[in-house]
Amino acid sequence: MEADRYEEVLKEALKLVTPSAEEKETVENLARKTLEVCKEIAEGYGGEPMLVGSLRRNTWLPEKKEFDIFILFPTSLEESKLEEYGLEIGKKVFERMGGEYVIEYAQHPYVSGKIDGVNVDIVPCYKVESAEKIRSAVDRTPFHVRYVESKLTDQLANEVRLLKKFLLANEIYGADAKTQGFSGYVCELLVINYGSFLNVLKASLDWEPGVVIDLENFYTEEDYKNLRKKFKDHPLILIDPTDNNRNTTAALSVRCFYKFKKLAKEFLSSPSIDFFVKKEEKPLSEEELKEFLSKRGTELIVVSFKPPRVVPDILWPQLRKFSERLKNILEETKYEFKVLGKDVFTDEREIAVVLLEMEVSKLPTVQKRIGPPVFNLKHSKNFLEKYKHVAIAGPYVEGVNWCVEVERKFLTAKDKLKNILEGDEQELLLKGIPNYVAKQLASEGFEIICEVERIASLMEEFPCVGVFLRKYFEKERLV
Amino acid sequence: MEADRYEEVLKEALKLVTPSAEEKETVENLARKTLEVCKEIAEGYGGEPMLVGSLRRNTWLPEKKEFDIFILFPTSLEESKLEEYGLEIGKKVFERMGGEYVIEYAQHPYVSGKIDGVNVDIVPCYKVESAEKIRSAVDRTPFHVRYVESKLTDQLANEVRLLKKFLLANEIYGADAKTQGFSGYVCELLVINYGSFLNVLKASLDWEPGVVIDLENFYTEEDYKNLRKKFKDHPLILIDPTDNNRNTTAALSVRCFYKFKKLAKEFLSSPSIDFFVKKEEKPLSEEELKEFLSKRGTELIVVSFKPPRVVPDILWPQLRKFSERLKNILEETKYEFKVLGKDVFTDEREIAVVLLEMEVSKLPTVQKRIGPPVFNLKHSKNFLEKYKHVAIAGPYVEGVNWCVEVERKFLTAKDKLKNILEGDEQELLLKGIPNYVAKQLASEGFEIICEVERIASLMEEFPCVGVFLRKYFEKERLV
Repeated sequence: MEADRYEEVLKEALKLVTPSAEEKETVENLARKTLEVCKEIAEGYGGEPMLVGSLRRNTWLPEKKEFDIFILFPTSLEESKLEEYGLEIGKKVFERMGGEYVIEYAQHPYVSGKIDGVNVDIVPCYKVESAEKIRSAVDRTPFHVRYVESKLTDQLANEVRLLKKFLLANEIYGADAKTQGFSGYVCELLVINYGSFLNVLKASLDWEPGVVIDLENFYTEEDYKNLRKKFKDHPLILIDPTDNNRNTTAALSVRCFYKFKKLAKEFLSSPSIDFFVKKEEKPLSEEELKEFLSKRGTELIVVSFKPPRVVPDILWPQLRKFSERLKNILEETKYEFKVLGKDVFTDEREIAVVLLEMEVSKLPTVQKRIGPPVFNLKHSKNFLEKYKHVAIAGPYVEGVNWCVEVERKFLTAKDKLKNILEGDEQELLLKGIPNYVAKQLASEGFEIICEVERIASLMEEFPCVGVFLRKYFEKERLV
Repeated sequence: MEADRYEEVLKEALKLVTPSAEEKETVENLARKTLEVCKEIAEGYGGEPMLVGSLRRNTWLPEKKEFDIFILFPTSLEESKLEEYGLEIGKKVFERMGGEYVIEYAQHPYVSGKIDGVNVDIVPCYKVESAEKIRSAVDRTPFHVRYVESKLTDQLANEVRLLKKFLLANEIYGADAKTQGFSGYVCELLVINYGSFLNVLKASLDWEPGVVIDLENFYTEEDYKNLRKKFKDHPLILIDPTDNNRNTTAALSVRCFYKFKKLAKEFLSSPSIDFFVKKEEKPLSEEELKEFLSKRGTELIVVSFKPPRVVPDILWPQLRKFSERLKNILEETKYEFKVLGKDVFTDEREIAVVLLEMEVSKLPTVQKRIGPPVFNLKHSKNFLEKYKHVAIAGPYVEGVNWCVEVERKFLTAKDKLKNILEGDEQELLLKGIPNYVAKQLASEGFEIICEVERIASLMEEFPCVGVFLRKYFEKERLV
C-alpha cells in the first residue's frame, strides 16, 4: 500500500518533470541546428563542437530549457588563442542563429545568450587525454558527458529529472555560490549509484557528515579516513568517477546536506506532490516583523545598498564575507556589541542587504580598559601614557592591574557601523570589506536601517527582501 | 624657604600626634599597673608578661590609646595549656583591673577589652630562641619589640607618629583585611631605615612595584630577583629585620602602595596640615547618584544584608570573595551580563553591601547556543539530544557548527542574582559563596536593590553606605 502511494506521487511528479514531445522536439531541433552551425564555423579554427549538458543526457527539466556547446581545441593551441577563437565562434553562431548574447567570465571568457527562448552557452575548452590532465575546470566536462552517457538509461534519466525537480522545488539544486547545493552532474551520479530517485532518498537517511560515495571503487574503506582529511569540512564526498582526486560535491554546504536528508525523511514518511512544487513565498508583513522582534527581544540592523554589477558567483561570497566583517568589527573588543544572527540577500540587480540581529546593540557611556599588571613597568608606563589625557576616571588598580575608564566612542551598534561604512573605498578595503562591495558602498552609498517602519517600507519596495526576512525568522529545523 | 614650610607644617602636625604629658602619664601608669598585676598572676602559670605595642615604643597616637601585654610561656608547654593559661590570666587581670573584656580569636584565642577607656589585649605566646623558630605569628612580636627598641630614639618615635597619622588620616594605616595598608611595625621600620618622616616620603617617590627594602642587608642586589619571585604580587618587599624570610608588608595592597606614593608626592609639592586630618565624609545624595548614573549610562545593583557576626579580618575577605563570585556567575557564559565595576562595604555591625555596576544588565529573550561541528558525531548527538525539547528555533547550522536558540531563563541581572541567592545554605556553598555569608543570607535574608530611590533610602538609613557610594563614583586617581 505504501509502495502504491509512492508510485502514485512519483507518477504525478513525472508529469511535472518530463518535457512534452513537442517541447522535446523543439529544443532538440534547435540544439541540432546550432551544433551544425557551430561545426561549420569551428572547422576554420580547428575546433570540434560537442553538445553537453542535461539536454544531451536527456535529464533536462521543462522549466530549464538550455544546452551548452563546448568547442574542443588541441592542447597545442595557446590559451590566448583558445579564448579568442572561442569568443569569435560563439559570436558568429549567435549571429547566424539570430540569438542575443553577452560575454560571461568563468576561467575563460565565453559567450552566453538566448536563441528562440532557450539558454545557450558556447564554451571553448582543451581536448585532453584524461581528466587528470585538464588545464581548467571546463576541460573536465567532456569526460563527464561520456561517463554519464555510458551509464544512464532513459529510465534512469527520468529518475534524475525527479531528483533535480525535488531539489529545485526546495531550493537546494545547483552548486552555485548562492545555493551551495547539488549540481546536475551530482544528481546524475547519485541516480547511477543508487539506481532510482527513491533509492537516493533512502540511502541519504544513513549519510553522516563525511560520508564517502565512490562509484568506481577507487578507494577501499581504509582510505576513507584520509579522504575525510583531504576533503575536510565537506559533508558529502562523492568521488568524481572521471577523476579520483576530485569531490563533485565540494560546493555543497552542511546546511544543504542536512536539508536534503530532512526532506528525504519527510518525503519517505509522507510522500506528496508538494515536495516537487516550489512553495509560495510570502513577504513578511510589518506586523509579523514587530511580533518576531518583540517575542525575541532583539533589534535588527539592515545595511541596504545597490549590489555591485558582478556575476552572482562573486557577489554572494562577497556579501557573506562583508557580513562576517561587520559582525567581527562590532564584536571587536571582548565585550562590545553582540550579534545574535546574520544573513545576506540580493536579487543580484537592484537590492543587496546585510541583516544583523543584535543581542547587545546599546552600551553605556563609560567603558573600562584593563591594563597590564603594575609589575610590568614598561607596559604600565605605556598604558598610563596612552590614557593620560583620555581617561575620565582612574588610573586605579583592580587586583594588580591598572584600569582606566574612558568615554565610549559609539553608544549604539548603528553609530559604529555608520562610522565604519562612511569611509572611502581605500578605507573600506583596509577594514577588510571585499573589493566590489567596498567600491560600491563608496561610490553609490548605502543605508543603515534600524527602525521597524523603515524596514517595512523596504520590504514593500522589494518583496524579495520580505521573503528573505521571513526565512530568517522562521528558522528551518534541520533535524 | 621650602624647608621652612615643611618645618612649619610638621611642627603643627606634631602637636596633633603627640600625647599630652597628662595623657602620657595616665596611660603609662595604667600600663605599668596592669603589667604588675599580670606578673603576679602569670607567675603561678610559669608565664612572663611583656609590654608590647606602640606604647612601649612611645609611638602611639593620642587618638589610639591602647597597649598589649604578651605572656611568654616556655616552648615545653602544650598548646592547649598555653591557650587555657592565657585565657585564665587575661580574665583575671581584667577582673582585677575592673575592665570589660571579650574573647577574640586569632591563631590562639586571647582576651581583649577596655580598662579605664584604654584598649588592652592580653595575648599568650611562646618564648622562642629566634624569630625563625616561631610556632605562630604572635611569637614574633617580642623580637619586633626588641629590634625597634634597640633602634628607635625619642626623636625617631615622633617621626613614626607623624607617619602613622599621615597614613591614618588618609585611610591606609593598618595591615588589617579591610585596610590592606601599612602596619605600625612597618611605619617604625621605614622611619628607622630612612631617618625621618620626610625622608620616607621622598624615598617613596622612587619606589617601583617590587621594590626591596632590607634594613639588615640580608640580601645582595642579585638576590632581589628571587625575592620578587618569592613575594610575587607584593608591591613592597620590606624584609623583616628579625626574620629574613618574611615580608613585613605582605598585606599591603597595590592600591595602598600607589596611594601612599601619590600622597607623598602631593605633600612634598604642597605641604599642608590637611594631610594629617581625616577628610570629612559626605554621603552621596539621591540627586548626585542619579547624575552619576546618567552620565555613565550604567545601572547599579546593590545586594544588602546584615553582616554575619565574625571578626573584620574574616568578614572583609568573605565579602570580597562573595562579590567576585557574583560577578563570575553573572558573566558565566561568554556573552552574558557584564559587570563594569564592583566593591563591597560593611560597618561590621548592621549593614553589608555588595555593589555591582552593570555594563550589560538586560538581555533578549532569545539566546543562541553554538554546538559542536557536525563532523563530531558523538558530540553532535549529545547536543541535539540535549536541546531537542528546549530549542525554540533550530537546530540549524552556522558554517559547520550546530546551533539552536533557546529561551533565556533570566532576562535581567537582578533576576539571575535573585535566583542564585534564594538557595538554602547548602546550595549557596555549592555556588561558591563563602561560608559565613552563605549562612547569613540563608538564615537572615537579603535584599537586591536596583531602583535609585531604594538605594537612596538605604543611604539615608546608613550614611556610611552613602559615603561608600561616593568613594566608588568619585574614583581616586592613583597616578
